Amino acid sequence: MTVAKGLEGVVVGTSGICLIEGNVGRLTYRGYDIHDLTSSLSFEEVAYLLWNGDLPNQRQLDELKGRLDQERAIPAKVKTAIRNLPVSSNTLDALRTAVSILGTGIPIEKPNMDDAISIAAKIPTINAAFDRTRKGEEPIDPRNGLNHAANYIYMLTGREPDPVKVDAMNKYLILLADHGMNSSTFAARVVASTWSDMYSAITAAIGALKGPLHGGAPAPVLQMLKDIGKSERAEAWMSNELKAGRRLMGFGHRVYRTVDPRAEILREIASKTADKNFLELARKVEETGIRLLQVQQPDRKLYTNVEFYSAVVLDSVGLPPDLFTATFAASRSVGWTANVLEQVANNRLIRPETEYTGPRNRKVIPIEKR
Amino acid sequence: MTVAKGLEGVVVGTSGICLIEGNVGRLTYRGYDIHDLTSSLSFEEVAYLLWNGDLPNQRQLDELKGRLDQERAIPAKVKTAIRNLPVSSNTLDALRTAVSILGTGIPIEKPNMDDAISIAAKIPTINAAFDRTRKGEEPIDPRNGLNHAANYIYMLTGREPDPVKVDAMNKYLILLADHGMNSSTFAARVVASTWSDMYSAITAAIGALKGPLHGGAPAPVLQMLKDIGKSERAEAWMSNELKAGRRLMGFGHRVYRTVDPRAEILREIASKTADKNFLELARKVEETGIRLLQVQQPDRKLYTNVEFYSAVVLDSVGLPPDLFTATFAASRSVGWTANVLEQVANNRLIRPETEYTGPRNRKVIPIEKR
Repeated sequence: MTVAKGLEGVVVGTSGICLIEGNVGRLTYRGYDIHDLTSSLSFEEVAYLLWNGDLPNQRQLDELKGRLDQERAIPAKVKTAIRNLPVSSNTLDALRTAVSILGTGIPIEKPNMDDAISIAAKIPTINAAFDRTRKGEEPIDPRNGLNHAANYIYMLTGREPDPVKVDAMNKYLILLADHGMNSSTFAARVVASTWSDMYSAITAAIGALKGPLHGGAPAPVLQMLKDIGKSERAEAWMSNELKAGRRLMGFGHRVYRTVDPRAEILREIASKTADKNFLELARKVEETGIRLLQVQQPDRKLYTNVEFYSAVVLDSVGLPPDLFTATFAASRSVGWTANVLEQVANNRLIRPETEYTGPRNRKVIPIEKR
Repeated sequence: MTVAKGLEGVVVGTSGICLIEGNVGRLTYRGYDIHDLTSSLSFEEVAYLLWNGDLPNQRQLDELKGRLDQERAIPAKVKTAIRNLPVSSNTLDALRTAVSILGTGIPIEKPNMDDAISIAAKIPTINAAFDRTRKGEEPIDPRNGLNHAANYIYMLTGREPDPVKVDAMNKYLILLADHGMNSSTFAARVVASTWSDMYSAITAAIGALKGPLHGGAPAPVLQMLKDIGKSERAEAWMSNELKAGRRLMGFGHRVYRTVDPRAEILREIASKTADKNFLELARKVEETGIRLLQVQQPDRKLYTNVEFYSAVVLDSVGLPPDLFTATFAASRSVGWTANVLEQVANNRLIRPETEYTGPRNRKVIPIEKR
């Protein structure tokens, strides 16, 4: 019996959604390279692609945009819940709760495309509503006609968003929208495999994304950059962290053995939106980290991962650090729902086994003799 | 590359909690046979065993009982949320939401024993509060000094519970408390493997338990028994279902190749609590189902599973059918939390792979040409 701890290298099923070629640093959605997808398409087109398998024509795209416009507003039960959340709530705890409530009191069928569109449409609205509520501000309703990326920034700030920032957000939302059988997507598929519903599956995925080994690291990356403060301090600061046995934030990925293509694209986006000095600092920290980690682990070269420049991009767009992972969820919700739809289209209950290593053949003795 | 769809037969890690020997129909928790555990112990003792690895001595048991007494009451934010839930909410959607809210606005650390005790203590309170609220009744606070099983019935009914029913509930809660790497437990471990928190993990587990392939089947078993109505109708009714290509509810299990020991024990419990005629009907349906399924699938004998007599027992205790799975969650919460604690004690991110079967090397063409 081979124990595949963490299921590394275990193939859990077939999928036609996403291909990660970790050795060459290539990522494709439905056969399209992530560079091509981010260079010319809208998040809406890529969402359509992930959900349906092909890029939309103009009519199909207009229809999806219309549906998203209809679905962005959150129902009263979710608004009330957001108002009642403790203001100190973690943004992922808030989002997990809001999506769970979204799935209450409605007739629920097998996970379907309507659920997928509803959830993906509403996550930015939920994030923005919670962020404003905790600051003592009124939530802002979505505005029809603004695209998904623009609506998100608009609902967060109440201002007509700057096109450069909208473009950065649009590309970010495309880049993070799917990534194979990552832990949150897998959690969603495990839940859906019992024939539970879409809201249960996405609630699970949000809980998994919260973990620092998965989606929870971009805010610590920003903190690291701020702690380092100046390019000239990078070397000393980072050496010190490694000597103290701590991990450097934003480096390395379980799947990529070379540059993560998403990190490259995010670096390019950051070059258009981030403050020049901060960008220079980030580049210096990236270069220093790669070099120091190479010395520490000569057999495996580590690069910056998607979280490193996510932090720089989302900060430059004006998001508070604790919304970084919740914004990751806004993007990944498309991949989660696409994966759930694929799971239920050809379902098999996901139930692995364990190797038992505990005691055997024990006899219950009366409590007074224990 | 071998595709292990549904991960059947794939060993995801080691565990010292639960051993299921499907071929001989044996189930043990921490080395103790489930027959021994149900025959003489309280749910509290078994919870202690699952969480800590050994049965408690009197002092340890008293301490755990004291902790459970302290932790049963639900905080105001959860009470408010339950009041605000749509009355038509599915009980599992309500529970999933309440546990999610429990995890908001508190400083959250690595999953720990305090979280485990808090969640296991509160699930019966949440179920009872939602059940009473939707009926327009005031929730009843837990009463110190009543054990876990008695408190649950007390909070549901407001009456001093009958000792026979308390004993049946106590045994039910022990029987369902853990069962290896089932889908809900696995979902909880996937979430925890990202270093997310206990509330996120248990929220995911509740969502998975909701699915009819996992915990969602006892209510349909009761419906089947009521539809059949009389022993003499069993044969015709069940043959008809099978001819129509429908599944008989409450038969067969992915792991057991012989009698499920839990079904046997539940049958015995039912013999003490259920109405005589209804019990006779259940036995006739069981015997008829086994026989008809044997004809249909001669190579594999199917028996009643845990859900079949769960339905009979929980009905006899006075629970409404749509609380059956939520009550399963009250029991399994101990196994979920024990598994999460085991996961984080020796963690590895759970992230499998997929075999990509989609298109490759596609080029984006402009939307007007699609």
